[in-house]
Amino acid sequence: MRLSPEPDTRAPWRLRVHEVIFEAETPAGKRFDVALMIAIMASVGVVMLDSVDTVQAQYAKALFAAEWIFTILFTIEYVLRLLTVKRPGAYAGSFFGVVDLLSIVPTYLSLFFPGAQYLLVIRLLRVLRVFRVLKLANYTTEGQTIMRALRASRRKITVFMFTVLTLVTILGSLMYLIEGAENGFTSIPKSVYWSIVTLTTVGYGDIAPQTNFGQLMASVIMILGYAIIAVPTGIVTVELSNAQREEALTTRVCAGCGLEGHAHDALYCRRCGGGL
Amino acid sequence: MRLSPEPDTRAPWRLRVHEVIFEAETPAGKRFDVALMIAIMASVGVVMLDSVDTVQAQYAKALFAAEWIFTILFTIEYVLRLLTVKRPGAYAGSFFGVVDLLSIVPTYLSLFFPGAQYLLVIRLLRVLRVFRVLKLANYTTEGQTIMRALRASRRKITVFMFTVLTLVTILGSLMYLIEGAENGFTSIPKSVYWSIVTLTTVGYGDIAPQTNFGQLMASVIMILGYAIIAVPTGIVTVELSNAQREEALTTRVCAGCGLEGHAHDALYCRRCGGGL
Amino acid sequence: MRLSPEPDTRAPWRLRVHEVIFEAETPAGKRFDVALMIAIMASVGVVMLDSVDTVQAQYAKALFAAEWIFTILFTIEYVLRLLTVKRPGAYAGSFFGVVDLLSIVPTYLSLFFPGAQYLLVIRLLRVLRVFRVLKLANYTTEGQTIMRALRASRRKITVFMFTVLTLVTILGSLMYLIEGAENGFTSIPKSVYWSIVTLTTVGYGDIAPQTNFGQLMASVIMILGYAIIAVPTGIVTVELSNAQREEALTTRVCAGCGLEGHAHDALYCRRCGGGL
Amino acid sequence: MRLSPEPDTRAPWRLRVHEVIFEAETPAGKRFDVALMIAIMASVGVVMLDSVDTVQAQYAKALFAAEWIFTILFTIEYVLRLLTVKRPGAYAGSFFGVVDLLSIVPTYLSLFFPGAQYLLVIRLLRVLRVFRVLKLANYTTEGQTIMRALRASRRKITVFMFTVLTLVTILGSLMYLIEGAENGFTSIPKSVYWSIVTLTTVGYGDIAPQTNFGQLMASVIMILGYAIIAVPTGIVTVELSNAQREEALTTRVCAGCGLEGHAHDALYCRRCGGGL
Repeated sequence: MRLSPEPDTRAPWRLRVHEVIFEAETPAGKRFDVALMIAIMASVGVVMLDSVDTVQAQYAKALFAAEWIFTILFTIEYVLRLLTVKRPGAYAGSFFGVVDLLSIVPTYLSLFFPGAQYLLVIRLLRVLRVFRVLKLANYTTEGQTIMRALRASRRKITVFMFTVLTLVTILGSLMYLIEGAENGFTSIPKSVYWSIVTLTTVGYGDIAPQTNFGQLMASVIMILGYAIIAVPTGIVTVELSNAQREEALTTRVCAGCGLEGHAHDALYCRRCGGGL
Repeated sequence: MRLSPEPDTRAPWRLRVHEVIFEAETPAGKRFDVALMIAIMASVGVVMLDSVDTVQAQYAKALFAAEWIFTILFTIEYVLRLLTVKRPGAYAGSFFGVVDLLSIVPTYLSLFFPGAQYLLVIRLLRVLRVFRVLKLANYTTEGQTIMRALRASRRKITVFMFTVLTLVTILGSLMYLIEGAENGFTSIPKSVYWSIVTLTTVGYGDIAPQTNFGQLMASVIMILGYAIIAVPTGIVTVELSNAQREEALTTRVCAGCGLEGHAHDALYCRRCGGGL
Repeated sequence: MRLSPEPDTRAPWRLRVHEVIFEAETPAGKRFDVALMIAIMASVGVVMLDSVDTVQAQYAKALFAAEWIFTILFTIEYVLRLLTVKRPGAYAGSFFGVVDLLSIVPTYLSLFFPGAQYLLVIRLLRVLRVFRVLKLANYTTEGQTIMRALRASRRKITVFMFTVLTLVTILGSLMYLIEGAENGFTSIPKSVYWSIVTLTTVGYGDIAPQTNFGQLMASVIMILGYAIIAVPTGIVTVELSNAQREEALTTRVCAGCGLEGHAHDALYCRRCGGGL
Repeated sequence: MRLSPEPDTRAPWRLRVHEVIFEAETPAGKRFDVALMIAIMASVGVVMLDSVDTVQAQYAKALFAAEWIFTILFTIEYVLRLLTVKRPGAYAGSFFGVVDLLSIVPTYLSLFFPGAQYLLVIRLLRVLRVFRVLKLANYTTEGQTIMRALRASRRKITVFMFTVLTLVTILGSLMYLIEGAENGFTSIPKSVYWSIVTLTTVGYGDIAPQTNFGQLMASVIMILGYAIIAVPTGIVTVELSNAQREEALTTRVCAGCGLEGHAHDALYCRRCGGGL
């Protein structure tokens, strides 16, 4: 929580509860976070088991009960978060605020729309808090390096994706004309789907070219995909390399000769030997 | 349009129309470009829907009408472009000139060859103008960096592709001898197709080796493909890294001789020896 | 074996046997290691052949005998290793000690649990000693460079894997809702399995989306997988590059303070400022 | 041909023929090479068509004749090469000497072993001479850069391949125990084949895990393959980068300050400004 100049007018119990469920530094806060983590994992496990026919047939009632117990617990937690936080609106609108809400809504929805409870797996996103709980400062840094690299390559990836989408649409339409509905390419959208399956080298094989010319075209697309897959890899590698170099190089400049880019542990300039 | 010393002899209406359909800077030009973009997207959507049986069965007439309306609009636009541009020949021969023409021809062709209208998806290429319309100067730069990297690696990729094609032909023929027609490898061209499917790790599974020796050979090809896929990735990564470094380097220019692209720690121009 | 100050109290025959089975430098030790290597390879071959029905039907007795002969030989070897090594406990708990034990246990287990003998392939891990036997010092270095790079990227890979696992669980659940049991997505765990098959671009095709919306979702996942596969590649490439640079850099040592790893163009030690 | 101090004792006709079939610089030599190229391509095309049932049914005689004509021509060429070259033994043992021989043998073998003629596709390797014919010096350089990078990473790739092979054997055996013959994993060798298909992300789907535990194991293998595929890519990228940098950097050293690594077009040292 950021320090704020305005005096804190929250009642003592609100401050106490806030400390437990929002902070990870205090013993009580840490214990709460670990318990929450286990509850989230367990509840996602329940949802997954609930979808397995053989398990469902035998333990329908237990799973149903467990789902509701977890949901009620998470609902209480969500309400407490809203009540004890200083700016409930800011919390409700934040990433974890939205995820916390989405984690309980599906169970209530399932009363009206059977099956909605499977959306509960979105609770897994709450586990991303694990990084904070376990004080994995280093892991957070690593995650940030990856994020920085991906953000830096955002524009290149966009241009690349746009080109790939144009390509698969045109190639898919060509294959629709070449192979036709009798070979499984029943429409352009389906052919575009096949193009994506092929270009990304997934290759399910549910649709595959049958004619000689279609197989020739497919070969061209695959060879093309070979070269194309190199592009995002290259982009991310270069950006990751940049992100890491920036980290490694302190921005210190030698007062004597002005050389930049000194190693982290450098005490003297490597060119002129002057102290840094 | 480049400035030209010869006086512009086009009639005022041609200048006005030219401004609207060629320029993206003026309000009218921008509005035209956005409308065009939407029309292109919509017309491609119509073509794709037209190929879906269930949609076609119900809305055949509406789709047919929409296709012709879009084509007539694009035809008028193409004629106007030809009439108002200064050098119609240069435009007609340029990349976008050819794409603009190819975007209207298929509908007329479909009168004689049913099905030709599906080629209309080539209109999508016109959307590449989106980069100009949205003044995405940065995106264009990113696209150019990728293009530069791909151009620089052109020769390496060619050598690589040539080697891969020789390899898949020989491997495909071997598999034809090992597996034979009874296991789906009905001819050498089909076996080469299988080789490409395997080496690129697409793996449809429509043809798969059945004999023990064939599966051993296939394993070798797959392990080989593992090492081979690393090559284009490596090539593009290195070139992308180079392309980006060159970009980063061109910020300093020698006052003496105007040379660009000095190393980060350069104090003197590497060509004329003058201080930077 | 490390030199130790305490006097070696092992009987002469133990020292002699130890030299043969643990050392690779002496002629006897080398001959033993090569024989061991061949025995391991042969015994793994026997286990693999034993699992092939047609071979098993014809040579059941010979294979059974060979398996027991190899196991008894390896048991004798293991006992000798335990008897002759200085600290039997340290050996038994070391990586190769555990592997040596696991290499003989399955045959004995197969007396009670038929099929357990197939676990004998774990013997293959013993072949990793090949690097020592063939004195492939260079290969060991290369292996270490790769290991160092993988270790350095451990944390980034962990963060990445965690994100991917969260992603495939959520995507799998969505596909379960979209496609449902009638299209092969019979449960959330099975749908998550399909997500992994798709995102890693393996694409068996045993489960494939049938509905239009499902195929659209699958396309998004595949395109996503395209960008995602670039991340581990980028991470490992950058770390490998770092690991190799570090290797290259350690050739110069500061005479003053002994610091290694100076930059290529360094004239002065970055720690003590002394000339290099 | 290398210059040799010993006087050339070959008859004039031998020198003349040698010039035509071995040299690519003279007009006659170039014309011969281009004709040879076309003949090779055409003959490979004939072999491929010969394997297609429908074509074979109709043009059996013409294809048979064409194959023999090409083979006789190539036989004459091979004999002439042997007769006119200075050291016939050295030529016969060289890479292209062996390929030239292998290019004619299969047709003769097909008299005794029907089907052997399909091995003729090995003729394609002769096309690698195309680089020499078209004087594609630059392409040769690019090819050499790739070869150098692959050679430099040879040891790392070997270590990597060895580890992967050990891994797929152990994983394949585990899957054999988990899934068993009733789910398509009929033997350990077949399970190892499946492991390779999965780890390389080819994923035919001819064999796919059916049990829950098998699918869990398969998921682990796929996620593992994700990280593993990054390794050869990283290795080749780093080596390619090195190979290219070595090319780019002349080994010139500044006489004034000793700085290495000057750009190709550098006339003055970038650090001290002294002439190079």
